[in-house]
Amino acid sequence: MAFLYAVTSGEQPFEKIIRNIKSIDSYVELIQIREKKKTAQELNDLIDSILKQGISPAKLIVNDRVDIALVRGLRGVHLAYHSLSVKDVKKAFPHLYVGKSVHSLEEAKQSEQDGADYVVFGHLYETSSKKGKKPHGVQELAQIVEELSIPVIGIGGINISNIGEVKETNAAGIALMSGLFQTEAPGETARACWNLLNGSEHCERV
Amino acid sequence: MAFLYAVTSGEQPFEKIIRNIKSIDSYVELIQIREKKKTAQELNDLIDSILKQGISPAKLIVNDRVDIALVRGLRGVHLAYHSLSVKDVKKAFPHLYVGKSVHSLEEAKQSEQDGADYVVFGHLYETSSKKGKKPHGVQELAQIVEELSIPVIGIGGINISNIGEVKETNAAGIALMSGLFQTEAPGETARACWNLLNGSEHCERV
Repeated sequence: MAFLYAVTSGEQPFEKIIRNIKSIDSYVELIQIREKKKTAQELNDLIDSILKQGISPAKLIVNDRVDIALVRGLRGVHLAYHSLSVKDVKKAFPHLYVGKSVHSLEEAKQSEQDGADYVVFGHLYETSSKKGKKPHGVQELAQIVEELSIPVIGIGGINISNIGEVKETNAAGIALMSGLFQTEAPGETARACWNLLNGSEHCERV
Repeated sequence: MAFLYAVTSGEQPFEKIIRNIKSIDSYVELIQIREKKKTAQELNDLIDSILKQGISPAKLIVNDRVDIALVRGLRGVHLAYHSLSVKDVKKAFPHLYVGKSVHSLEEAKQSEQDGADYVVFGHLYETSSKKGKKPHGVQELAQIVEELSIPVIGIGGINISNIGEVKETNAAGIALMSGLFQTEAPGETARACWNLLNGSEHCERV
């Protein structure tokens, strides 16, 4: 059963991010705070506010900043190509849950070998944030899912209309960014996606 | 006896930074790697190269990125207004040497109270990086030195012509950035400054 993995867009004001996260909370397994333009202090303040809303730190993953994940006691960190390496981070902080963005089977295998706890593969579909770049498609995702032992999460252009197709790859998770946060009611979208993934009406999890 | 605290300018190419640091190494007590535009990976690679040149990690302080200081086993981290707070960092990593930039006696006292291991106060003189902003001057530095128990380092526009005046404030350290790295031969400048601070010809320290 695939889970929802929400990724913030880096384009919304502070208050809107917090409101949106609160509205999707019960439908998502993990939330990646991806606010690249924010300073460490701004990012820390944002995460502090999110935690004060009752969102579990065990659900939060921060982009790039290992130090903020550690200081705020979050579940983990998501590393991109410009970040510290998976190897270095896992060696220094073995308890930290570490994800990595990958764009090929080879990169995915390497990340698994380096000790990543999960990988995010994409982009699967055309998306406004990757304009002009050819999407990888779900078949490549299905192959990576088959060859890796760690969870593989699909990302890029996923929305309510194609989420079923991504589910069929047996990916561990389905990442939503603009398809979630740029919709009119992210809470309603998350609920609809959750229902599509789980085939039944969502009940509040405890 | 005041020591030299070198701060990289963020404007030099990779190879030049490494060459300059190597040339000043035996005259400086601490080196702050302040390369704000670099990604975590670039910063990590730079520090890795510096360490491979034989520079001691016990001499290196990285700006803002607590995670890189931890992963590379450096002496410490220097925090600015946009960084994580001194309190949060010292609470999570008590062993890490933590410095803070301050611009008034009040800020300096607060940082000391928050657990900072040292503060950097400035700017003391007019400097190209702080154009149009009135310098604080050495008298304010002398007052902060007197009122704080932790080391206070003076920064901003210090060079060979005014370093003696800064020394007279009894500051623990003298920070040099453009006055060191933008001179023709940083190694020679560092040696000259060292001699001015120590009043005798420099002998290689072991």
